Amino acid sequence: MNDILDRIQPTDAQAQHAALERQRHLTKPLGALGDLEELSVRLAAVFGSPRPHPRGVSALVCAGDHGVTLEGVSAYPREVTVGMVANFLAGGAAVNAVARTVGARVRVINAGVDAELPDHPDLINRPVRRGTRNLLHEPALTREEALAAVRLGAAAAAAEIESGADLLVPGEMGIGNTTPAAAITARLLGLPAAAVTGRGTGVSDEALSHKVTVVQRALARAASEPTDPLGVLADLGGLEIAAMVGVILEGAARRRAVIIDGYIATAAALVAARLAPNAGGYLFASHLSAEPGHALQLEALGLTPLLRLNMRLGEGSGGVMCAPLLLAAAATLREMATFEEAGLV
Amino acid sequence: MNDILDRIQPTDAQAQHAALERQRHLTKPLGALGDLEELSVRLAAVFGSPRPHPRGVSALVCAGDHGVTLEGVSAYPREVTVGMVANFLAGGAAVNAVARTVGARVRVINAGVDAELPDHPDLINRPVRRGTRNLLHEPALTREEALAAVRLGAAAAAAEIESGADLLVPGEMGIGNTTPAAAITARLLGLPAAAVTGRGTGVSDEALSHKVTVVQRALARAASEPTDPLGVLADLGGLEIAAMVGVILEGAARRRAVIIDGYIATAAALVAARLAPNAGGYLFASHLSAEPGHALQLEALGLTPLLRLNMRLGEGSGGVMCAPLLLAAAATLREMATFEEAGLV
Repeated sequence: MNDILDRIQPTDAQAQHAALERQRHLTKPLGALGDLEELSVRLAAVFGSPRPHPRGVSALVCAGDHGVTLEGVSAYPREVTVGMVANFLAGGAAVNAVARTVGARVRVINAGVDAELPDHPDLINRPVRRGTRNLLHEPALTREEALAAVRLGAAAAAAEIESGADLLVPGEMGIGNTTPAAAITARLLGLPAAAVTGRGTGVSDEALSHKVTVVQRALARAASEPTDPLGVLADLGGLEIAAMVGVILEGAARRRAVIIDGYIATAAALVAARLAPNAGGYLFASHLSAEPGHALQLEALGLTPLLRLNMRLGEGSGGVMCAPLLLAAAATLREMATFEEAGLV
Repeated sequence: MNDILDRIQPTDAQAQHAALERQRHLTKPLGALGDLEELSVRLAAVFGSPRPHPRGVSALVCAGDHGVTLEGVSAYPREVTVGMVANFLAGGAAVNAVARTVGARVRVINAGVDAELPDHPDLINRPVRRGTRNLLHEPALTREEALAAVRLGAAAAAAEIESGADLLVPGEMGIGNTTPAAAITARLLGLPAAAVTGRGTGVSDEALSHKVTVVQRALARAASEPTDPLGVLADLGGLEIAAMVGVILEGAARRRAVIIDGYIATAAALVAARLAPNAGGYLFASHLSAEPGHALQLEALGLTPLLRLNMRLGEGSGGVMCAPLLLAAAATLREMATFEEAGLV
C-alpha cells in the first residue's frame, strides 16, 4: 500500500497562489464568477499551473456484490448488479448517456460481481472474489482482498490517465452498497448508524428502520478501528468501494482531479483521505446526494458540492455531469483576457 | 409586436406526458436522477418529443449603454461597455472561455452602445440609438425604440436558430444595467426598490444606498403601468434588455429552449412572460445570482435555478455554463435503456 501512498504529494501551492493573483486581473468584476473562482484556483493547484488545461474525462464504474443483500437491505434483487454491468457495457445507463454529451469515456471495473462476466473491450474483468461476505456476521473482506481491489482500481486509473484522462470519476454499481458505505462512514466519522443510513435506491420506512438495525449490529460486530482505514474498508467491505479507493489514490498520485460522485463514492473518498491526507487536495465534490449522510461525509472532507440536484443514482453519473463545470472553471482562468490585455485599464 | 406574440404556442403537453411515462421505465430507481428528471420532461415539452435531441448552443450577448450611469450607479465607467464588446469579439471574456468548453457560439448584438463599433463577423451591429436616456428624469426609450430593439433581438435569434441553435442564451453587457433591471422588476412585480436593488458589479454600502434612491425616484417619475409590459420596458429602459426580450420571444415562438442567465436577463424574461404567458414554458433558469432580487424574479416566473454558484457576471456566462446540464438531461431521457430493453424485468 505504501508504494501508492508515498507517491501522493500535496497540490502545488505556488501555482495556486499564481492562479489567485491571475484571477484578480481577469476581465470581470472581482468575485463575479463566484464559486467557480475558487474551483479554478484549486484546479491550478492540482495541475501545477496558473493556467490549467485539463482535457479527457473518464468514468471508472466499479462493480461488486454484497453478502449483506441476504438481509433485505435493498429495494432491488442482487441480480440487478450484473444486469446493470451489461447495461453500462451496452451504453444504456444514465452514466453512458451523460458521458456521451460531455465526450467522457466510461470503463467498467468488475471488482467482485457475483457472476461470470464475458469479456468486453470496456470491461476490466479481474474480480477479487464473487461478492463480499455478509458484513453483519463477519468481516466482508480480508485485508489482502481489500488491498487487491484497491490495486485493481489504481491500475485501471493509471491506464486511463495514460490514455489521456485528466478528470477521473470513480463511480459504482453494487446492489446493497449503501449499507457498507453507511457502516464505513459511521465507523470513520464516529457517527451513529441512524445519522448515515438512508433509503438508498428507495426502500420503505419499515425497510429503512431494518437497514439502520443491520448497520448498528454490523458496527457492534466489527472490531476494526477508525485509525486503520484499510482495516475498516476490509471489515465493512465493498469490493467496488475498495476499487474506488484505488482510483482516487492513483489519481491523486498522478496529480489528476478526481470528481467524487454521491454517497458511496464519498465513503471511498473518506477512506482514501484517511490513508493519504494529501489526497484531499485532488478531490472535487460533484453534487449533494439526496442520501442524508452525504452532507456529513462532505463536511468531514471539507468539500462543497457544486450541484444540488437531489440525485441519488451513483454510477458516477453526477460526477460526469459535473465535469463541464470543472472544464469551464479551468478555461476562465486559462483563457480569459486580463484587463491589461484587453486594453481596459 | 403581435406578429411575434401570436406565434408563441404552449409547449407540447402530449410529449410531456409521454416523457413522464418514459422516465418511469428507464434503468434507474424511480426519481434517482432528481431534478434532472423534471428538466428532461420540460425539454420534451419544448422540443415536442419524449426523446428530445437539442444540439447547438448559442449565446447572444446584447450590449447597450445607459443614461442613468450619469448618476454614479455603477462601480465601472461607462466606457467599459464598449471595451467589453471588443473583448467578447476577441474571445477573451468569461462567456467566450466557457462557450469554447461546451462548443457554444457567441454572437454580440449592439443594441445601443454609445460608440461607433467597427464591423465584425460575430457582431450584429444595428444600434437603435447610442445609449438610453436617463431613466431618472425621463423615459429611457420611446415605445418605438424599445420595439425596434426587441425586433433586433428577435431577428438575431431567428438567424441563430436557422444556423442550428436549439438552446439560446440571451446574455448582456451594459455598464449600469442593474439599475434599469431593478426598476423594471420593481414595477412589474409591485415590489419596493430596496427589495430588488443590489450591488451589481460590486458597489459600496454608500453607493448601494444611493442606487436604491435612484431606483425609487425613477419609479416615482415613471408613469408606465405593470399591465403594459412594453411600456414599462421603454419607460425604465435598457436597449440590451429589450433585445434580450426579443431573443426570448423568438426562441419561444420557434420552440427552442431559452436558458436565462442572471438578474438582468431575468428582468427581460419577466417582460417577455408578461407579453406572452406561453413563453414561460420555454424558459430555463440557469443559476441563482448573488444579486438579491434574482430569487424574487425567479419565483415570479415559477423557475428553479439549476446552479447556485454565487455568480454575478452576466454576459450569459452562467447560462452557457448550464447548457451541458440541459443536454445531459435530454440525453438521459433520449438514450437510456428501459428496464425491458435492458432485459432487467
